[in-house]
Amino acid sequence: MFVFLNNQLLEAEKATLHISDLAIQRGYGIFDFFRVRDNALLYVEDHLDRFIHSAQFMHLACPYSKDQLHSILQELQQKNNLPNSSMRMILTGGYSADAYQPADPNLIIMQSPLAFQDTLVPKSLSIITHEYVRDIPEAKTINYTMGIWLQSKLAEQKADDVLYHINGTVSEFPRCNFFIVTKNNVIMTPAKNVLKGVTRKKVLACASSHYKVVEGPVTIDDILNAKEAFLTSSTKRIQAVTKVNDKAIGNGEPGAITTELLKSLVTVEQNYVSKKL
Amino acid sequence: MFVFLNNQLLEAEKATLHISDLAIQRGYGIFDFFRVRDNALLYVEDHLDRFIHSAQFMHLACPYSKDQLHSILQELQQKNNLPNSSMRMILTGGYSADAYQPADPNLIIMQSPLAFQDTLVPKSLSIITHEYVRDIPEAKTINYTMGIWLQSKLAEQKADDVLYHINGTVSEFPRCNFFIVTKNNVIMTPAKNVLKGVTRKKVLACASSHYKVVEGPVTIDDILNAKEAFLTSSTKRIQAVTKVNDKAIGNGEPGAITTELLKSLVTVEQNYVSKKL
Repeated sequence: MFVFLNNQLLEAEKATLHISDLAIQRGYGIFDFFRVRDNALLYVEDHLDRFIHSAQFMHLACPYSKDQLHSILQELQQKNNLPNSSMRMILTGGYSADAYQPADPNLIIMQSPLAFQDTLVPKSLSIITHEYVRDIPEAKTINYTMGIWLQSKLAEQKADDVLYHINGTVSEFPRCNFFIVTKNNVIMTPAKNVLKGVTRKKVLACASSHYKVVEGPVTIDDILNAKEAFLTSSTKRIQAVTKVNDKAIGNGEPGAITTELLKSLVTVEQNYVSKKL
Repeated sequence: MFVFLNNQLLEAEKATLHISDLAIQRGYGIFDFFRVRDNALLYVEDHLDRFIHSAQFMHLACPYSKDQLHSILQELQQKNNLPNSSMRMILTGGYSADAYQPADPNLIIMQSPLAFQDTLVPKSLSIITHEYVRDIPEAKTINYTMGIWLQSKLAEQKADDVLYHINGTVSEFPRCNFFIVTKNNVIMTPAKNVLKGVTRKKVLACASSHYKVVEGPVTIDDILNAKEAFLTSSTKRIQAVTKVNDKAIGNGEPGAITTELLKSLVTVEQNYVSKKL
């Protein structure tokens, strides 16, 4: 397996950073993540736009343009020859002289095998809530301190994931976006304090052709009154959320609209890949 | 210069971590920092207690006991022979197989030269405020995303540091604790959402022998009504805060009690070092 580090492809096991990097010293950096399907870099344009936005927002000078990053990703994809896989891009704060001021960033691109089925039946998840908002919700930073820390709580409570909220108004999961379907078939997703996911964007596009769609505040009470709920992410696509804090959502089963949107999303993905072939 | 990495002393330039470390992938880790003065590891017992507490709180298994860490620090100090310096200890989330689950932590101990004067006149600082609370205030994590991100705002506003608050109730600076002296000579410092600094502890001990001391809520209004304000940290000791959001605190000069506490703190430090010689 090869990775791309700063300006070269090298064997993954040889890819290291000096301990003075600001990611190690201060957890400072940004990242992005997407899937490779049948050799196509899924929605790579969206992911590169977001990566570049995150870098700018966090005052990190990305050493490559969008087109250059795209070429590097293609080169890595050819080198590793993993038709179905994941790509992880990280831009760190760089080798800081005083362990506080960002320096020239270090760029890491890693690829891993990732098998993926076109399952059309949504998985069913039980979630808990936790009061928290990410430090800088506008950017996809590497700071997952809270999400990782909460894993032991998830295990204790036998929950699958944790939804962040502030005063009962929910935002996002550590790595996924959240949607509800109201009793009137309105599809709602939080717009504030969230990372605007690429899968979220695709689902909003799918949903808006058949349903009223609202990007706005969603409370824990709204969830309990909803007919359906689901989460979205690049690796999870759409998964049904059927329980929150041990209370059933709707009838406690993955709903019809959740299932319909998953089918639409898989079709969108298949069409994207077909066009790239 | 030598550093200690996991289980060995090695030359600093050779100290690297593989990119799969959870600090690089997810900004996950803890740290601590203290000064070395005349070869004495300043308040090392307090710093090691806190380091071990932070590790436990963040579910990271520190590979060494307090005594073992102390011996490693002494060995590094002898090897580098830097009588006046700083020590930085980091324990990362380790080489994670899935870039999310913590693994066996990597331990880093770095030393840098640090010249230090026993100046008895406090520096005068102008600060701004920013609404934020650290993800996990109980632990000294490596997550300084917000503090580093705000550096450009500090430069724009020509301020020296930024004090975090929630709804006007202040907590701490990214790397320092905060105190005010009220018009009645009561010394107050926030107790909630703060990292309990070692210098904070020493200053509380100095102050309590002459003044009433309160650990409790301090608001931005309280600061504007205060006679004096100051911050504390291992590297800054005590510095006067004379301006907040462009408004003068007290008479806008370092105050008498701030100056007196700085003198006491320097004496405590000198006595600590004398006992270790």
